[in-house]
Amino acid sequence: MSKVNLQESFDRFADHWSPKVIGEMNGQYVKLAKVAGEFVWHAHADEDELFLIQRGRLHLEFRDGRVVTLGPGELYIVPKGVEHRPYTDDGAEAWVVLIEPKATKHTGQVVADLTQPDVEWLQ
Amino acid sequence: MSKVNLQESFDRFADHWSPKVIGEMNGQYVKLAKVAGEFVWHAHADEDELFLIQRGRLHLEFRDGRVVTLGPGELYIVPKGVEHRPYTDDGAEAWVVLIEPKATKHTGQVVADLTQPDVEWLQ
Repeated sequence: MSKVNLQESFDRFADHWSPKVIGEMNGQYVKLAKVAGEFVWHAHADEDELFLIQRGRLHLEFRDGRVVTLGPGELYIVPKGVEHRPYTDDGAEAWVVLIEPKATKHTGQVVADLTQPDVEWLQ
Repeated sequence: MSKVNLQESFDRFADHWSPKVIGEMNGQYVKLAKVAGEFVWHAHADEDELFLIQRGRLHLEFRDGRVVTLGPGELYIVPKGVEHRPYTDDGAEAWVVLIEPKATKHTGQVVADLTQPDVEWLQ
């Protein structure tokens, strides 16, 4: 692979909730996503999911009412099986690095309008 | 887990070539390392290794003579089995986020003076 500059890579796409793969390692994909607004509640039964923020703020809400708010340079790992709902501040965008198993669908076991059908590598 | 602020976490230790674990996911550890000078040639037989730079510059030399130089916000995945030698600029320090399988020894199959015996979580 070539090295990946995160900022330059994020600059190459604009669509929301459509993660782009930039690398793979140990059966996982490293993905970049731009998000805005709120996502569906979902969990990944067998897969931990890492979130690292490049720009903006991302909130992760959990069923116990807890909300973890991540800013640039902050990361969080959502353990397998834990339902979570990502959302941004109103009208704001967040840029997120995701690492998760290649088998992971980003909406987990929930199939929603936002579910992307296939893996898309960043061009 | 609590969220991890990378900058604050790097500020909590100073020793070189002694990775600190900050999280685990899918059988892998997320580690922070401060490095300076050069490391030994090594490879990890069955494990890909992700490098993401937080501060400074890290060079990765390969046996074919290629050198990949990473700066802040740049990442690279060294595929399993590929020998590599990390080093910094003379007298300079680099701060590196590493993600690799929990079984990985940082010197690979080479046991050197720099090999750390056990996994150390960041306190």
